[in-house]
Amino acid sequence: MGLLIRNTLAVLPAGIGHATGHHDLYLEGGDIAGIDEAPEGFTPDEVIDGTRLLTIPGLVNAHAHTYLSVMRNAADDLAFNDWLFGTIVPLESHLAPEDCYWASLLSQAEMIRSGTTCFNDMQMHAGQTSRAVVESGMRAVVCRALASVSYGRDDQRIAEALRERDEFACCDRLSFLLGPHAPYSCGPDYLRMVADRAREEGMGIHIHLAESQGESVRIWAQHHCTPVEYVRDAGIFDVPTIAAHCTRVNASDRTILAEHGVNVATNPASNMKLGNGFAPVPELMEAGVNVCLGTDGAASNNAQNMFREMGLLALVHKGSHELPRCISADDALRIATRQGAKALGLPCGSIEVGKKADLALLDLDAPSLTPLGDPVAALAYAVNGSEVDTMIIDGKVVLRHRELTTIDEERVRFEVARICERLEMS
Amino acid sequence: MGLLIRNTLAVLPAGIGHATGHHDLYLEGGDIAGIDEAPEGFTPDEVIDGTRLLTIPGLVNAHAHTYLSVMRNAADDLAFNDWLFGTIVPLESHLAPEDCYWASLLSQAEMIRSGTTCFNDMQMHAGQTSRAVVESGMRAVVCRALASVSYGRDDQRIAEALRERDEFACCDRLSFLLGPHAPYSCGPDYLRMVADRAREEGMGIHIHLAESQGESVRIWAQHHCTPVEYVRDAGIFDVPTIAAHCTRVNASDRTILAEHGVNVATNPASNMKLGNGFAPVPELMEAGVNVCLGTDGAASNNAQNMFREMGLLALVHKGSHELPRCISADDALRIATRQGAKALGLPCGSIEVGKKADLALLDLDAPSLTPLGDPVAALAYAVNGSEVDTMIIDGKVVLRHRELTTIDEERVRFEVARICERLEMS
Repeated sequence: MGLLIRNTLAVLPAGIGHATGHHDLYLEGGDIAGIDEAPEGFTPDEVIDGTRLLTIPGLVNAHAHTYLSVMRNAADDLAFNDWLFGTIVPLESHLAPEDCYWASLLSQAEMIRSGTTCFNDMQMHAGQTSRAVVESGMRAVVCRALASVSYGRDDQRIAEALRERDEFACCDRLSFLLGPHAPYSCGPDYLRMVADRAREEGMGIHIHLAESQGESVRIWAQHHCTPVEYVRDAGIFDVPTIAAHCTRVNASDRTILAEHGVNVATNPASNMKLGNGFAPVPELMEAGVNVCLGTDGAASNNAQNMFREMGLLALVHKGSHELPRCISADDALRIATRQGAKALGLPCGSIEVGKKADLALLDLDAPSLTPLGDPVAALAYAVNGSEVDTMIIDGKVVLRHRELTTIDEERVRFEVARICERLEMS
Repeated sequence: MGLLIRNTLAVLPAGIGHATGHHDLYLEGGDIAGIDEAPEGFTPDEVIDGTRLLTIPGLVNAHAHTYLSVMRNAADDLAFNDWLFGTIVPLESHLAPEDCYWASLLSQAEMIRSGTTCFNDMQMHAGQTSRAVVESGMRAVVCRALASVSYGRDDQRIAEALRERDEFACCDRLSFLLGPHAPYSCGPDYLRMVADRAREEGMGIHIHLAESQGESVRIWAQHHCTPVEYVRDAGIFDVPTIAAHCTRVNASDRTILAEHGVNVATNPASNMKLGNGFAPVPELMEAGVNVCLGTDGAASNNAQNMFREMGLLALVHKGSHELPRCISADDALRIATRQGAKALGLPCGSIEVGKKADLALLDLDAPSLTPLGDPVAALAYAVNGSEVDTMIIDGKVVLRHRELTTIDEERVRFEVARICERLEMS
């Protein structure tokens, strides 16, 4: 199917920054097949008039737990341990696999509506995010959370993860990682076993790392090293790794992350909300780490809106460093798109011929885009996500004039309400 | 005119927090005339079904420059002095009075769409914000920026400010302050003269105060005191004062602000964006200062969205203090509503009988409010402003199902585009 977006104001990559201009975008076979020049034999099945639309690469949410949407606004203004072990984990234990499917669809509806085309998900029940992704049309990288505090082998969960990978091999919008949960929930033998298994299977790793001060204190007490050193010593960094949070990484840790090519997904809203502070994003970038951006789950954010997250990313480091040029608008957009795609090993995140046709089209008549000024500054500082008019993923329209084409939102709301009623009773 | 909002989920004040429940709200003569109990002889001209709406007090934007919307995304990733003196002031000099009218209407359209019913505006050309407010139906407190670096008297601008006050006395949604711009733009004799004049006229003061490190250094070099001491010594605090920013206020300054009953309008986005850091909001509250919240102008924000600002307020101090209970959701909502109203001396900002009928009604079916969980947490952490369905100011509907009833947005966009074209040419 061919889709032509005619005469749209498009944000293209230019060096490490961006260049904005009017272009015709030719989409075919799920890819961006041509810019201003139709590929041979191109016949559009649909033409979108892009004259009053700002077209950008779809945002890449590099760390999410889409099943946690059912716990939105359920546990707020709490310290990290009270939040996780006092509220979230007990609530999670009541979630059935089917609940996670509906909850993931809810998060995906919110993500599509606010410009995200691709997400990296750590789920609780294997198979549920994938089921929802097949239906929603999104692009996703999925892992099942693996944890063993008992320092034993936990082959059952790994087997579930590999079964999911095999079962959904037919959907080329899906790819899979292994997901050892965190240093504080995985013993060293277990981490080593997961790393070995990832190497054997040719898979990468998605892990929470150095998220809280409590984690650092605990790992130091138990292993006399930092969380980064602990995970490195278990061999995790010998396979491609995306590490979420990294708020507590000293200069030596940052060098380790850079030397091992570890990708760091920063989650400013979640880190602030749980009192974990600010990740040293400028310092990680200075060290040469590929930084990407995530929302984390709705239980600690509480939105799944990457524009809000990009705005936070562009602002909070200026605030904490008192440097108005720290993390520029160009940096923020690159981190939220290209660098996320790089971290996930996916050919998306920028408007270039040969890249995936994953695009967000924003209404240029929205008040927050009036006047437009610098479009990249607008994306980082002015928009809130509600400007998103149309979304295209893998060349297919999944949101048209603010109407979802793949997800039955009313049904999702109904099912989620039922789940929440049941959880409150349990 | 009577308006009944039937069976709405309403956020009412309860101590320093809030209590949410289903209520019938009776609006009459611009006021909240009854809650669950119709006032005598009440006949509704309109009934709004509130079943799927979350009704909250309209947000109070306690520091704005609505005319600056024409400079949205025009000067980003710059240091404070380069931003203000290198870009904004030169651009401002080309603005005609009529330009500021259209620019203010644009800001007001964005504010209404994102839940704000009342704003405190420091304008450049007298009369223009007031003209726009008469038309938009918003509630506003207006001042004309006064500045004299030459330490002289500048009666012309004060005369303009007083003329505007007298001219618009008929509009009871408008009230007026005197607006000495800032310590670095007003000499001590000038400040003293403005304070005297305010006292004579029975008016309050709106001033920028202790915004940047550069200001503190300059005032120290010239006057051997802090900006707060400088302004106090000029007698400004002897009249009711609302001071914007206050990022650089030490413990002694905070005591001075509290002792003089100075209201502080914090502007987290603007302060971060210009590298001015974080205002010590928890410490100001601890000292007993009435803190309120503002967006600042679109030239340094770049939005006029108080929900975004409330989210930043609730998150950044948790981050900078590494305390997850610092500025709770309840604090953030109170600061964005009741405390703003208190700072401006207006009977709005809470849903109580006798208060102004200034309300924001949010769509409970929005993904970001699904599931709802704690409604106050939702307002602070989950929403982005796009959930606003209906807005009522002074008992009148100014936004109905996302359509503005008072502002011709297309005309405003057209006029603003013309202004921007002209500015780029000049």
